[in-house]
Parts: sequence; structure tokens; C-alpha cells
Amino acid sequence: MKLKLAIIGFGNVGQGLCEILTSKREWFKTGQNFEWELVAVSDFQKGSVLCDDGLRTEELLKLVQSSKSLEDYSGKCTKGLDAITTIQRSNADVVVEVTYTNIKTAEPATAHVKTAFSKGKNVVSSNKGPAALHYAELKKLAEANGVQYLIEGTVMSGTPVLSFAKENLAGVQINSIRGIFNGTSNFILTEMWKGKSYKASLSEAQELGYAEAVPDADVEGYDALAKVTILANVLMGTNLNPSQIKCEGITGITEGDILKAKAENKKWKLIGEIIKEGTEVKAEVGPRLLNADSAMGGIDGVLNAVTFTTDLLDDVTVVGPGAGRKETGFAILSDLLRINRALK
Amino acid sequence: MKLKLAIIGFGNVGQGLCEILTSKREWFKTGQNFEWELVAVSDFQKGSVLCDDGLRTEELLKLVQSSKSLEDYSGKCTKGLDAITTIQRSNADVVVEVTYTNIKTAEPATAHVKTAFSKGKNVVSSNKGPAALHYAELKKLAEANGVQYLIEGTVMSGTPVLSFAKENLAGVQINSIRGIFNGTSNFILTEMWKGKSYKASLSEAQELGYAEAVPDADVEGYDALAKVTILANVLMGTNLNPSQIKCEGITGITEGDILKAKAENKKWKLIGEIIKEGTEVKAEVGPRLLNADSAMGGIDGVLNAVTFTTDLLDDVTVVGPGAGRKETGFAILSDLLRINRALK
Repeated sequence: MKLKLAIIGFGNVGQGLCEILTSKREWFKTGQNFEWELVAVSDFQKGSVLCDDGLRTEELLKLVQSSKSLEDYSGKCTKGLDAITTIQRSNADVVVEVTYTNIKTAEPATAHVKTAFSKGKNVVSSNKGPAALHYAELKKLAEANGVQYLIEGTVMSGTPVLSFAKENLAGVQINSIRGIFNGTSNFILTEMWKGKSYKASLSEAQELGYAEAVPDADVEGYDALAKVTILANVLMGTNLNPSQIKCEGITGITEGDILKAKAENKKWKLIGEIIKEGTEVKAEVGPRLLNADSAMGGIDGVLNAVTFTTDLLDDVTVVGPGAGRKETGFAILSDLLRINRALK
Repeated sequence: MKLKLAIIGFGNVGQGLCEILTSKREWFKTGQNFEWELVAVSDFQKGSVLCDDGLRTEELLKLVQSSKSLEDYSGKCTKGLDAITTIQRSNADVVVEVTYTNIKTAEPATAHVKTAFSKGKNVVSSNKGPAALHYAELKKLAEANGVQYLIEGTVMSGTPVLSFAKENLAGVQINSIRGIFNGTSNFILTEMWKGKSYKASLSEAQELGYAEAVPDADVEGYDALAKVTILANVLMGTNLNPSQIKCEGITGITEGDILKAKAENKKWKLIGEIIKEGTEVKAEVGPRLLNADSAMGGIDGVLNAVTFTTDLLDDVTVVGPGAGRKETGFAILSDLLRINRALK
């Protein structure tokens, strides 16, 4: 059986996924017993196309790469549907929700996810909004509808974190989770450690495409906060809201602080942590001073890392990219493979 | 259905597993849908006891902890069987092969594994002998008999490596594998970096129980070599023998080398690496000079680490313990959970 996919949001992640699916189609079929068909794509700006018999992904990618509308796609298809209607009308088994994150309202993504569940469709998503604000509710709704809500890509893009804890660490008790969850702020701190000013480091991050023009989500810690909320709610069984978690960014770290740390062979890192104490779970985001030659102190540039402190393995750490087109595309893919295995 | 287990070899790992299984019995049942029964234990020195209806693990652990024979176990059981006969006669679904590694002959472990397969039993093992010398043959034999041969514990004890690559990284292409696979030599190099002599560092490792009286397997790189062989054969599809892989240990590193490295903010690490170049796979074990503040350079003491270089995620690294009673016990458990899930 081919897994039928509808992609909602056709930006970097949606396109990245599409490229991976297309270029590895044969390999997935023979090596992973995974066959797929893209039956709909809907993007707020790039247009919308739906075809129950499947779309040619090569043509869709060419259209967006040449800045054309998806509705220029050739062939008999339904065009111009909005996201909600696309989800309702398509015959997809899985809705891939990869619209932009709105961390304040979590919309329109939450509406997309709920619509998919109400139609008995699984959801795979890298959107941090619904995951950070409504995980417990959405997880319950998915279960009530007999479908899955998988969000590996919301924390460290393709670097396995949620699946690592739930699958590889099944059988151990996780007592705390601690990590560097924002690549942009880590890049800025790394550049400052090398001697640059905050301003110059931020400018470089913006030039390289790591930071937005308004960099608050990264430098004020809000992005790390969303990820910490997701980790706590998915892995520690809490029902926390980001507003309940203390959050401090890196903008208070002065060049003097960096020099002082350097003299002591230490590094400032923006750390998110979740600690279970008895039945209580404490979560926090803030700058921490680490030994430069410690495992977490060695995580520089845009790299992310997470350490699970457990009863049977003490500390286990996963280090990898925390963002990126193909990286987040892979995160979505890894969840699709998970659904595909469960359906076999 | 309860998964029936026979443990062959009741040293640290066998006992560690038994302790975990016993202490978390209820949690496994409710949280992991995993129920088990120990139906046989056989140890070359500690004796042997077999009971198709199940053994009381608490009593077995008490016996060995008070240096008594397993054959003092109370109740109607078959006692005194050797390992092969235990495997043949028991009604176990899974044989847990955790006898001591003999890296030269891989015996008697290989005979245990083959006997289990011939009786249609799965094998879970942390024994590096059969895995390093006969993986391809044993894997084929397992498949021919419709059973599994799972060896997560052979590389970094309970730190997920093989399952991480096969499950979490399913869908990416692994181009190279690079890591610190021997905690004892890493501990010695770390102590030398702190200013101690090789001799003093080795003595400390021996006092702490990290190094054997004859430390060759660790300091000459043979243990890392076995792990590199396993990684290449399991994850890169090769059929290499350790004798085909270039291997150099840490005994050639002088205190002068360490001082020189330190002055350049570098560290010597014993690195195992496997590189895929087209259809060719090159493997090697040897000392490498790394930046002290790099991710792998920050892996100190007995910690192990592995970096997978991939097409979709660039570098992804897992850091954790590489040995230990409860750690390797957990590795066995994680493979048991895998078999349990597959049987549901």
C-alpha cells in the first residue's frame, strides 16, 4: 500500500521533504518497504493543487523554484482550495503540517491538525506552535480518532530526540533533560567567544540566514522555550504552557562576561532544562556557564545537543543539527517511516 | 504472552539484566506491555538451573551475591546442565548470551548462538566475539531459522548505537562512522592530559576496575577494533575480519606528545573510523589529534562517543557510557523489548 500524503505549507521544509522523497523513491521502496504518493499540496502564498491519483513532485518543485504558482501544475486537478478544505477533501492518510510556526496563537496550524484528526488522518508536523501550546489536547484527540500525531521535527529538526527518548531509551527512567536547543544563539555565543561583539555576531548570523531580521525568538530564548515545553509535555507527561516556564535569553551576556568566562576556560551556553523531582517537573531556559572542554561545552556554532540523565545509563547525549531544509525534511520523513511501519 | 528467557553466563551483565528485569517488572508490564519469565540460567562457574515454569530471580541473585552455587536454588528444577544442553532443553524464546568475550576464538559463545538458532530461539548478546568474527554468517543463520540476532550491547553497552543507526537514521545514507569506542584508553589519555604519567594513569584505571591486570585489549586497541569490525559489518554491509583492519593502540603516545598537544589546545583520542568511498569501505583504529574544544575532543574519562556522517543530517553524534553492569544490562533489555514489540 502506498502511503498517501498531503503537504500543508510548501516552504523550505515542505520542499525539502519533497526533494528527499523524490530523489530516494526507489531506495525507500526496496530498502524501507516504503511507497508513497503525494495527493495534495496547499500553500497560503504558492497556491494549492489536489489530485487523488497522485501528483508529480518533480513538476511541483520546478514550479516553486521558478516562482510560479502551484496552480500552474498541468493536468486535471482540483486547484485553489484553502488548507482546511484541502485536508477535508483529500484522500491522504497523512497530513504533513509544515506551515510557519506562530508561537503565540499556534494558528492556523492547530486548525489544520484538528481538521486532519476529525477526518481520521495522521499528522506529521515540524510546527512548534500546536506542539508547544496544545500537545496534551492534540495527542488525546489523535488517540480518540485512532491516528498518530508525530512531531520529531519540532525540537532538533532531523536529529532524533523525541524518538530517541521514547524508543531507544524505552525501559530507562529519564530524570532530567538538558540541552542547547537554539542554533542561532549558540552561533552568536560561539562568535563572541572567538572575540567578536554581540552586534557583529548577530549581523553575521543574519547574513548567513541563521537569524531573522527581528531575532527575538532566537536571542530572547523563545524558540528554546517552545522546545523545552514540547520536551516536558511529550517526555515528562506534563501539561505546561510556555508562559509557566522561566525564560531568559542571551542579550544580557556582555562582552565582559565572555572574556571573564574565557579566562576561566568556560563558555556561556543558552541551556534549556527540565528536571523531575519526585512528582514535580521544573523547566527553565537561561544562560549557563559550562567548562569549555566538557561535552556540552564543546557544542559550538549552530549545533544543538540534548543530554538525558537516566537511572540506567547516567548521561546520554545526542548532538546534531537543529535546523535546516533537508534536516527538517528528514525529521518529517522519519515520522512517515514510523507510520508506514505501524501500518504494515 | 510472557517472553521466556534463558541466560547463558551469569557474570556482571547477566546479573545486571536480572536486577533490572526484577526491579522494574511491574513498570515493564504496564508501561511497555512487556512480560517475561526466566526459565534457565547456566554459568560455567556458578552452576546451572532450568525450570520451564520460571525461576525466582530474587533467589538466584541472592545465591550468587553470597557466593553460593545457582544449584542451591530451592525447588524442583533440572540442575547441572552445561550451556549447550541448557539451550537445547529449555523452552526459552530468547537466549541471552552474556558469557565472557574471547576475541580470538569467539568460543564457546559462537556454539551457544548457533545452538539457539538451530532450536528456533532468538539470541540477544553483548558478546563481542561472535559479533566481530562471524556476524554475516550468524545473521544469515538467524534469518534462515526465522529468528533475530540482536547485539546492541556489543558496541557502547547501553548507549544506543546499532539501533540508532538502523532505526532512527533509517532513510539517511551513512557515509562514515567515527568514534571513541574504548572507555579505558580514553580514561588513561584524559588522566595523562591532566598531567599524570602513562604508568600512573594505567594504575588508576586498574584500581578503579576499568582496566584488566593485562590491559592489552584496551591499550593496544583490540577492544576498539572488535567494535569497529562490528559497526562495519552490521551497518556498512561488509564482511570484514578484525585482522584485515589496521589497528594501533595508545601505548606509543608519550608524555611529550601529550604536552605538545596540550600546548596547542589539542587532545589525543583513540579513534575508530569506518569510511565508505564509493563501494569500498575503509576501517581503521588509531590515535588521532583533535581540537580540545571540539565535540569529540570534549569526550573525556570513560565516556564513549560515535559520530555518523550522513547525507541528510551531516554529523550526528551519540555520547554515553561504553561499559558497566547496569548499562550493558540495559542494552540487553532494549533488544528484548525490540523482540517483544515484534512478537506483538
